[in-house]
Formats: sequence, structure tokens, C-alpha cells
Amino acid sequence: MKIQKQIQQKAYVSDGFIGKYQKLVSSTVIPYQYNVLNDRAEGAEKSHVVQNFINAGKAVRGEDPGDGFYGMVFQDSDAAKWIEAAAYSLSNFPDPVLEKQLDDLVDLIAAAQDKDGYLDTYFTVKDREKRWTNLLEAHELYCAGHMAEAACACYEALGKRKLLDVMLKNTAHLYKVFIEDKHGGFPGHPEIELAQMKMYRLTGERKCLELAEYFINSRGCDTGYYKRECEARSWKVWGNDPGNADYQQSGVPLREAKDAVGHAVRAVYLYTGMADLSSETGDTELYEACKRLWKSITARQMYITGGIGSTVHGEAFSTDYDLPPDTSYAETCASIGLMFFASRMLENEVRGEYADVMEQAFYNTVLAGMQLDGKRFFYVNPLECVPGISGVSPTHRHDLTQRPGWYACACCPPNAARLISSFGKYAYGENEDTAFCHLFAAGTVSFENGISIECDTEYPYGYTIKYRVSGKGRLAVRIPAWSEKYYLSVNGKVSDIKPVNGYAYIHVTDGSEITLTLDDTPRFVYASTKVPRLTGYAAVCRGPLVYCFEGADNGGDVLSLKLDTSADISAFSEPDLLGGTVRLSIPAVRITGTDGLYSAHRPEETPCTAYAVPYYTWGNRGENQMRVWLPISK
Amino acid sequence: MKIQKQIQQKAYVSDGFIGKYQKLVSSTVIPYQYNVLNDRAEGAEKSHVVQNFINAGKAVRGEDPGDGFYGMVFQDSDAAKWIEAAAYSLSNFPDPVLEKQLDDLVDLIAAAQDKDGYLDTYFTVKDREKRWTNLLEAHELYCAGHMAEAACACYEALGKRKLLDVMLKNTAHLYKVFIEDKHGGFPGHPEIELAQMKMYRLTGERKCLELAEYFINSRGCDTGYYKRECEARSWKVWGNDPGNADYQQSGVPLREAKDAVGHAVRAVYLYTGMADLSSETGDTELYEACKRLWKSITARQMYITGGIGSTVHGEAFSTDYDLPPDTSYAETCASIGLMFFASRMLENEVRGEYADVMEQAFYNTVLAGMQLDGKRFFYVNPLECVPGISGVSPTHRHDLTQRPGWYACACCPPNAARLISSFGKYAYGENEDTAFCHLFAAGTVSFENGISIECDTEYPYGYTIKYRVSGKGRLAVRIPAWSEKYYLSVNGKVSDIKPVNGYAYIHVTDGSEITLTLDDTPRFVYASTKVPRLTGYAAVCRGPLVYCFEGADNGGDVLSLKLDTSADISAFSEPDLLGGTVRLSIPAVRITGTDGLYSAHRPEETPCTAYAVPYYTWGNRGENQMRVWLPISK
Repeated sequence: MKIQKQIQQKAYVSDGFIGKYQKLVSSTVIPYQYNVLNDRAEGAEKSHVVQNFINAGKAVRGEDPGDGFYGMVFQDSDAAKWIEAAAYSLSNFPDPVLEKQLDDLVDLIAAAQDKDGYLDTYFTVKDREKRWTNLLEAHELYCAGHMAEAACACYEALGKRKLLDVMLKNTAHLYKVFIEDKHGGFPGHPEIELAQMKMYRLTGERKCLELAEYFINSRGCDTGYYKRECEARSWKVWGNDPGNADYQQSGVPLREAKDAVGHAVRAVYLYTGMADLSSETGDTELYEACKRLWKSITARQMYITGGIGSTVHGEAFSTDYDLPPDTSYAETCASIGLMFFASRMLENEVRGEYADVMEQAFYNTVLAGMQLDGKRFFYVNPLECVPGISGVSPTHRHDLTQRPGWYACACCPPNAARLISSFGKYAYGENEDTAFCHLFAAGTVSFENGISIECDTEYPYGYTIKYRVSGKGRLAVRIPAWSEKYYLSVNGKVSDIKPVNGYAYIHVTDGSEITLTLDDTPRFVYASTKVPRLTGYAAVCRGPLVYCFEGADNGGDVLSLKLDTSADISAFSEPDLLGGTVRLSIPAVRITGTDGLYSAHRPEETPCTAYAVPYYTWGNRGENQMRVWLPISK
Repeated sequence: MKIQKQIQQKAYVSDGFIGKYQKLVSSTVIPYQYNVLNDRAEGAEKSHVVQNFINAGKAVRGEDPGDGFYGMVFQDSDAAKWIEAAAYSLSNFPDPVLEKQLDDLVDLIAAAQDKDGYLDTYFTVKDREKRWTNLLEAHELYCAGHMAEAACACYEALGKRKLLDVMLKNTAHLYKVFIEDKHGGFPGHPEIELAQMKMYRLTGERKCLELAEYFINSRGCDTGYYKRECEARSWKVWGNDPGNADYQQSGVPLREAKDAVGHAVRAVYLYTGMADLSSETGDTELYEACKRLWKSITARQMYITGGIGSTVHGEAFSTDYDLPPDTSYAETCASIGLMFFASRMLENEVRGEYADVMEQAFYNTVLAGMQLDGKRFFYVNPLECVPGISGVSPTHRHDLTQRPGWYACACCPPNAARLISSFGKYAYGENEDTAFCHLFAAGTVSFENGISIECDTEYPYGYTIKYRVSGKGRLAVRIPAWSEKYYLSVNGKVSDIKPVNGYAYIHVTDGSEITLTLDDTPRFVYASTKVPRLTGYAAVCRGPLVYCFEGADNGGDVLSLKLDTSADISAFSEPDLLGGTVRLSIPAVRITGTDGLYSAHRPEETPCTAYAVPYYTWGNRGENQMRVWLPISK
């Protein structure tokens, strides 16, 4: 039913900007994370992930499980995300040492699987009797989902089947518990839905599809489930309120859902599974629900950086238009999940808006999550940072001024690693006769439909994208909504092809050369007046990049700057700045003479120049002020 | 040592704006509150306050305490604040029914006092053994303080001595416990300090002074006290963290304090006691600490409305310049406490800035706390309200769009009632030869120094203040800092007296007529660029009144308005609006054409007029948008 699908992992060899990031993940992030999992990383909190699997293996064999289980209830998922990242990365950069590490870890995981297919070290080590008694909090289906995704990656990227077999056996176990034995519950943290859909596509195993269908179709129907579950058990993890149905995305059947609610990562993982299922089964009712949820997020609850989940309270969606720049949560993982959702929406319908948001989330929030050296990570991505308030005020304590090292809850770094390593799957799609270019990324792609392309671009800093094509069919090239002006040439001739839903469909044959030139003019962006926090403010963007104003470029003080939005913005290439970037300069005024807290004296405004750098590079030059949105002088 | 002191309660007979409020408190607030205390108010949460005293009386007599204690651990203080308000109000408006109610309640309280002088129904009814074992949370000294204030009010305003004797006996008990028996603790919620100082002044009882001195001088010296106390007891009220020294204002000896920290009401009550003590003893080191704390609050942590304690987390001070208009806490009680602090600073040094802030807090936050009909109350006073976000978003849940009725924790309404009923004490002060006019309030005042004045003014809406004087000496009239231009005439002749520290000192004799004319021009006010949330914004004020923009006056939408601060503001008298007010009209633009969440299209700006009403009147016309600060168009 899908009108196009993601390409296979091995179809894309990256280059340029994305290639550099993939190399960074391969050379720095994955080895560091491996050391963390094995408790060998200096300065990192204790992980115990690998040891948990070793100990669970002992428990399975009836041996003493050594020093037991340690960590969060979802600790296993750190291993799964690392495997997924490592598998994708190995297909980009073969490395026998890393491959051995991956194989060994898979062996440990396989050995930790119970005879009935169950796999979760927390329960296997601590208490088998408690399995499936706390779906609200205990993340069993979440961990199973991540491990299934890891299994798919190993098989798809490396042809390794061992973990896939483990997880198919696990699926059979889940099928027995939830379908045959009618357990009646659904996961507190969605993830299993999209994971089972991945396995279904890769293997054709019907049980995977049926499980995903079951979890999606049952959710929100039995609104008393979590409460009964909570009453029936005598133990808890955190003591989550089972009655908070909005937070758990379980207040209404998903087909009737109108608003994106609750924990943002959970929401977009769930919506991804829904979009997966609708594209696979042609379930238009479900796709309509997905469209409403998409709109709820992107038209009313999304930061300009593609960040979602604006409140720290439950890492959750708040209310429409409540998008504070300074107290934002905007978790890196939530934007990664938003990319998943967008890519699956593209499998239902090829519409530029889906890829636009995917790009917006990637180049801004997702990349901002990682320090330029790949060594430290933001979970929370504020759009404003004021040292002295950020990280200090009780309402800003989660908004740090600098990326911290590895957390005990290590969700974001491996999530970014797996996303970056498999970037091609989001950038390109295909169906039987068309190659879809959703995102612009230098490198070569071999589609299953026989088309191959070579893409040459300096995107996101250069706005000319050249495709050289082998094979025959159509190339569908996205025209980003932010580029109102563009030039498309086919074999050197200007084309007048009218885009359909944001994509130019171009017939290609062997040797075709397509050149897309996008608008490189920096632009001011304004928010709806429905966003109370942003009236009277403007942001600055160029291409897909949202810019920000940092103290480092502006004499230490960005709070006193006001932008002249009637002026033109200039762009300067800065090869030595922030790993190579383009800095923008904008006519502005600096407010002076407001020394008292309040004054009736009109402050003076001195003309000056404001300098902006891409948002994803912020916080790489020490602690300083940062703002994405500045007030407008005129 | 005091260079001037508050006038006696009975010295002032109010008229005009203040008189109307005092009548409202007398006719509506106090009777309603009495019904609440007696559990006879419809729709109010159960109070049980009076019954607690009845039951404690039974316990004291060795009888069964009936249905026991109900309510907050500080429930007794509701009775104390009501008595204080009723006593002050009775001196303004004699009323035999109310007087009988007050006398009866005092009788019940006296009967609830233990033989050793202890008075607290929570412990007397529930568990005498737990007395003084949880100063951190249990509010025993807080309740004792409020009851002492009530006792002072009964004696000073009505000449009734019974409660004063009860509380002097209570003081003797406290003296034994804390001074003689060296208990070693200090109150989790300060209040006893200022209360003992009040009793000391009224009675000369040295034990009162010594207790206040003890609590002020010991605080912050033994930083391990609360932790030890917590470890030594097996019970808790809320489970407050005993290690949060900043929150408890106990991290440093108070003489060394630099920053106002912690729970805002507790802080200003404590600082009031400090200023009381320094003015009484001439302790300049303590006054210097008070000055630092005053500056910390008013120069870096105060809203333009005189609201303080910007964060809901602990109802507390946050960090310097963290003054969000939309998520503000700014509790009504905290601004009342700030007025206390200001009035005591005036007893150390007559400086206009103290009275300026007292006025700012009163006419804006304190009055905004009460609905115009006196029937509903705000505890939290945001400077921005957006229905759909305010009261709904997790970060705005405390910021309600409408004043609610009576709370279980009923601190603010009776606090406002006692403040308004005793307004004269804040408006006027005296020493042996000078009558001080700190605030402008119509009515007559008889100073102990022999001077009497009649003040005629329509303040805060009219800016001519006429004083007719009897007696001989000096009149010290404050020239508010907001009125850069003013005219002062003495007996019909323009005076060129230069104000000293914000006060014009005028020699007067019998029949002197002084007229002060202040600037009635509405003005734009700008915040320091150090306040991140307010750069590019302006507020509008006239006289002491901060204005706000409500949907009701602006077509339902104030979020799309930008002010033209280069234009003049016009003022229109509106006798039928909001109990009689002056509305302001300001040239502005309305932003249109920003229908998408973000857009690169420059929004259109259509010239329009923005209308503002005084902040204290907001939320009296149903739920609608409200903003104090608007962005500036030019």
C-alpha cells in the first residue's frame, strides 16, 4: 500500500556534511558508548548494561546471577540502540573490531533470552514472576521494541540474522501473551508498534503485523486498564499516576485522537507506528488520525527548531501555542521521533511538508543535541540561554548552558547515533519507478528499482544540488517550502516542471543531470501572534538552518539586541569557525541606558550589527547567552 | 531609635478610594470570612478554625476534644488574621454584632491556651508531646506570631486587653522554651519576630524584644539545626527538605545576608522583623543587611506591579532578573509582606524609595488580589493571562484566569483585609515634631505630636493632594519618584522646597494649607535589558497605577498588539467602568497575517488604538487575555 518506502541501509554512501557526521559517530560516539555500556568510560555514570545481560544469561541457565541487575528499568535499550547505531555505522565504515564487539554483545543478548522467548534483563535477573504486571512503568515492551529495531538493523545493514531470530522468537512470545492469552494491556512507553512493523517488513512475519495492530487498535479503548493494573500489583517503578490518560496517550482510541498529548517521545514513537501500519494496510481512517496528530504537532506545538514537547513536566506536550523559548524541554529524542513520524507519513503520502519538518528537526534540534566533537550531548534544547538564569532558576533548571556528559538515562546520545548512521533511509525513498529525494545529502544511492544517483552538494551551506542519474524512471525531488524561489534544470536546460505537493517529478534516463538551485537568501521568520512568547520577535534562518545569536559573537550580550527586519541579512563563510560554518550579520540596535530594573526613560538604541550562527552549533564556545528569537526594532 | 513610627490605628479616618475599600472589607470580606471560620459559608472549603479552638479548649480542660483538629497545621492563623482585620475594621466602622463575634472568638482562644501559656490547637488537640519538635514545618511560632499581631490590634484599635494578656502569657512560655531552656531552634516560617516587636512596642515587655532578637540573631548560625531536628523526630507535615537552607533563609547569619532567597512571604516577614529590631535598637549592622536585602528584592527581583517571589516552586524568590510575566507567582501575601518591610524600613530611614515600593505593591498586586466586589481572591498575580495556556499548561497551572473563591489555605484574603483596614498605619508616620505623609489617602489624621491634618484627594486617580493642617511642626510629604514634575504650594504660594530623600519637609502652623500636584501624564515604562523576558517590551503607568491590556477593551486579542511608544497616551475618565476608573488609550499597531505557526512573510501591521485599564482591575469582566507588557512597534 505504501506509495514509496525508505531505501535499504546499504543503498546510500554518504559524503559531505552528513558524511562528516557519520564519521564522527563512527570514530567517537560509538566507541565511547561501547565503553559506557561496559563500564569502562571515564567520568561516565555506571551503566552495567552489558553485565546485566551476562547476569541474565546466568539466571536463564539457572546459575547465580552475580551482582544482579543495575540501572534504569529500561537499561537494556541502551544496548539495543548501540547495536542499531553500530550496525548502520558498520555498513558505512566496515571495522572488524567493532563488528566483533557487536557480535559478542549479540551473543550475550541471545544467551539472556528465556526459553519461552522472553527477553528483559530487569525481570529475568530480579523477578520473573513480575513479568507483564506493570506495563505502565516497566518498559518491557519498550525494550523489546528497541531490541527488535536493533535486530532489523543487523540484518538489513550487515546481513546478520542471529539477533533477528532472537527477536522473532520474542515476537512469538509476545504474540502468545498479548494475542492468544489476551493479556489486555498496552505499553506505557510505545515503541513496540513501530519495531514490530519494521520486523514485519523485513521478514513478512504476520505475527509482527498483528501485534502492532493489536497495540494500536486496543490503546485508548479500555481506559481503565492502567488503573486496574496498578491496583493488582504491589510494586512500582516510579509510581506514575495510572489515571493520567492524556499523559499516556490512552484517553481515546487512537483513531479518534485529535491532539498530540503526553510524553513527547512516546507520542511520536506511537504515531510513527500508526503511520507505519496505515501505510502498510491502507487504513485511511488511521492515516486521517495521523494527519490530525501531525497537524496538532507541527501547526500548533512545534518550535521553529523542530523541537517538540515544550514542558519539562513529564517531558511532554503542553497546550497549543505554549512554546516558551527559555524554559523549553524539546528533547533531542523527541525530534528524532518526529523524524521517524515524518518519514512514515511520507510512506502514506509524498508531501513536502513531511520532509520539510524532518529536515527542520534534523538540522536544528537533532544536531544541536550533540557537541561538535561528538563527546557531549544535550537532552534538552532551549531556544534561549541566559547564564545566571538557565540551569539555575527553578523553572529553568533543566535548561543547561553547556552539554553535559553521559547521563544515567542515556536515551539521546545513542538515539542520535543510530539516526545519523542511517541518514540515507530518511533522505531517500523509492517505489517501483521513482527515486525520491526527500533530503539533500551528498553521496551515491542505488535504488532497488534500478535507478542510481550521485548527488553533489554542499548542503546545508551550499544550495545547489546536482544529481547525476543512472537507470530509467522518475526522480522526485523535494522543493523545500522555505525556498519560494528555485531553479530546476534538467540536462542543462531550465525546467518548468510544476511541483506536485512539494516535489518536482522528473523523467530521467541514463546520464540525466538534474540541478536544483535553492534560495540561499537568509530570511527573517515570524511566529503566529497566537504564540504569546514570540509576538514582536523575529528569528533568522538560511536554508534549513535556524540561526541563533550567541554572546561569543555579540560582545557577550544578546539580551539588549533588537533586529532591524527591514534590512538585508548578509552571509559570510567562516571555514574556521565552529567546524566550518556560515555566519550571518544583521543590522540591529543595541539598547542601552536601562540600568535600573524599571524606568520611564526611553532607552537609547544604538545602531550595531548582530551576528548569528546556526543553532546546531550553539554552546560550543563555553557558557554564554544565546537567543534564537530577538525583538524587532523595525 | 526610630526616626519616625507608624501612627496609631485610631488616628486615621479614611475617605475616598481607600475609604471605599475599607467599607468593602467591613461589609463583605470580614462577614464572609467569619462565616468561613465557622463553616457556614456556602461553597467554601471546610475550615473548622473555630471548632479547632473549641476542641482545644476541651483538651485543655481534660475533656474529650470532640471531632479533633481539622485543617492545615497553621489553621489557627486564619482566626488570628480575621481578628486583626475585624479589630482594625471595628475602629473604622463600629458594629456591635461584629464586636460580639470578635469577643466570643477571643474567649474561645483564651480557653484554648494551655496552663503553661502554650497556644496552638493542632498540638493541643492532637499531641502535646510533639510541641516544638518540628519548627521546620509545623508553624507553631507562625501561629503564635499571628495571634500576637491580632492581640496588638485588639488592644491598639479597640482597647481590648484580653487577647494581649493571653499572648503575653504565651510570650512568657516562648521565653522559657527558647531563651531559658535554650531550645536552639528557629521558625520555619518567620512571623514571630515582627509580632514580638509589635508587642514590645505596645507593652514594653522586654521578653518580647529578647525573643525577637534571639530568633533574628540565631537564624543561619547553626546551619545544621533543621537537619538534626528532622533526624530526631519520627513525624512530618509535608516532608520539607531540612537541607534547603536558602529556601529557609537559614544558610547564613542574617547580618551577612546578601540576597533575598527562599519562600517570599517568609522572607519579607523575616526582613520586616529585622528592620523592626534595627529601628528599635539602633543596630546599624542589621539595618545594612536590611538595605542589601531591600536592594536584592526591589532592584533585581520585583515585578513592576510590586509582586515578588517569581516562581511557583516553593512560592519563592528565583534568581536575579528572572521575572517571567506569564508564569509569575507573585503572591498577594508576599506583596503585603513587602509593604510591611517597606514601612519598617521607613522607621529606620525616611527615604522615598521605601514608600514608593509600598505604594507600588499596594495599588497593583495587593489590590489585584481582591475581586472588585470583595468576594473572590487571587493568591497568584500573573502579569499576563492567555486563556488556553494560563491555568492549563503545566508551567502555568497556578496562574488562573479568574479569581477563585475561598481556599483551604486561606492566607491571602484575611491578609489583604487586615492590611486595608489598617491602611492609615502605612500611609502616615510621625515623630515628636513631624507628621509624615508616605501615601496619599483622603481622610483625617490626628498625630500624637499634636498635629492634625485633613487630606483631600482623589488619588490614585486624581493627582492633587490638599492638606489642611492643625497644630504646629513639620509636614513631611513624599514626592513619588514616578512624578518627575510636581508643584508644591504652601498657603497658596508656590514653594521651592527641595525634597530630601524624596520628602518635602514643610513647616506648618495652625491653618496651613499645603497642596501637592503630581504629574498625571501616563508614561511608558521599560525594563532593564537584564530581564530577558522584557526586552523590546513596554508597560504603561499613570501615577502609582500600572496598567494592563485586557481582551475586553481590545477586541478580545491583546497578543497581536504592539505599542507606539513615540506617541502620547491619552487618559479618559470612565465612572461606570470597573467601579470607576481611568482608561488609557495608546496608539498601537495590530499584527495581522501570521496565521501559520511560523512564516517568513513579514506580518502586516495595521495602526489601531490599544486600551488599558489599571492592573488591579483585571479579571473582573470574565475570562480574557491580559498583558501588562506589550511589544513596542516604535
